[in-house]
Amino acid sequence: MRIGIIGSGNVGGTLGKRWASNGHTVFFATRDPESAAIRTLLTESGPTAAAGPLRDAVAHSEIVLLATPWPVTRQMLESAGDFDNRILIDATNPLAPDLSCLECANTISGAESVAQWAPTARVVKAFNTVGNNVMDDSAFSAPVALFYCGDDASAKQTVAPLIRELGFDPIDAGPLSQARVLEPFALLWISLAVKYGFGRDIAFQFLRR
Amino acid sequence: MRIGIIGSGNVGGTLGKRWASNGHTVFFATRDPESAAIRTLLTESGPTAAAGPLRDAVAHSEIVLLATPWPVTRQMLESAGDFDNRILIDATNPLAPDLSCLECANTISGAESVAQWAPTARVVKAFNTVGNNVMDDSAFSAPVALFYCGDDASAKQTVAPLIRELGFDPIDAGPLSQARVLEPFALLWISLAVKYGFGRDIAFQFLRR
Repeated sequence: MRIGIIGSGNVGGTLGKRWASNGHTVFFATRDPESAAIRTLLTESGPTAAAGPLRDAVAHSEIVLLATPWPVTRQMLESAGDFDNRILIDATNPLAPDLSCLECANTISGAESVAQWAPTARVVKAFNTVGNNVMDDSAFSAPVALFYCGDDASAKQTVAPLIRELGFDPIDAGPLSQARVLEPFALLWISLAVKYGFGRDIAFQFLRR
Repeated sequence: MRIGIIGSGNVGGTLGKRWASNGHTVFFATRDPESAAIRTLLTESGPTAAAGPLRDAVAHSEIVLLATPWPVTRQMLESAGDFDNRILIDATNPLAPDLSCLECANTISGAESVAQWAPTARVVKAFNTVGNNVMDDSAFSAPVALFYCGDDASAKQTVAPLIRELGFDPIDAGPLSQARVLEPFALLWISLAVKYGFGRDIAFQFLRR
């Protein structure tokens, strides 16, 4: 396929190189095709890669990868010309500059509300990311990750074995504010299980290498 | 351990039963210990389980599991008495009644903004949930899940092979609005990799049985 890349940094550069080495024709959008970074990228990508103006990256491609830093995303799209029904793969994330949250995302979580409503409790968020059928029987082909988070280290040390003894791999995701990502993660499980055809016998393994 | 259960439904009932059968002392909070549901639960949980008033479930326990439907959560906590520094495992999710979103969560996503800014493109959200090091080398001990979503079925059919050829397991998470959960999912990866000590060589396998 002919693939245009908008945003030739870590993500766009990596994917463009890999697709080019698989034989796709890759066009990196750039204002400066002679820059050292682009020249290195083209050398590493091989003969099916080229670089040039943003509008050409769209016009010459069947499919476009969007991998821009969030703050420039709107401007880049509005400068890209007509997409004319092309596929646009959006690989961006609307991250706040300090990576602490998404710009259009939660600034509170259920767990943090719970901690306000139970002020003398040491709250640990856990058992919210898979369905009760998985809690009842955690046997999959690989260990199922069970994330937890909280602000009290000793409370988390107490909870982790209660997770492990049910057959899960307990993953400490950090402070209680991490419930802002663990609660949407639950919604991923729920939506796949209930709305998008996967059924309730699904789970996630956490992989490390 | 002595474990109190607030909310003895699917989640609380399942976990309470399993912990009781592991030998823990489990106390299910209930307004009606004679109800058929509670009696069944106690029979299935064995001799180390009991049921009774909410305040007793807290007072008699070292650790309390919160597994209430979200709309009653605040009221249950405020009726539960003093937690007196007990651990409270929060297994709730602040779900909207139709399960479509979290009550205190996103009502828009980056991807939906992208679709507004590139109105003639067919947007597919993808490659936003793992770091570029994983995109560069997707070899873990198991296939790495790469979620994508979008409103155009044929666009998704085109993108899925581009994911698979890089060594990933492409998972169709549904319509573009699912970016509201896939973008926070990215934040889980980012926060674990960058802030909470796991490093960037982490990923998720999607398990089905």
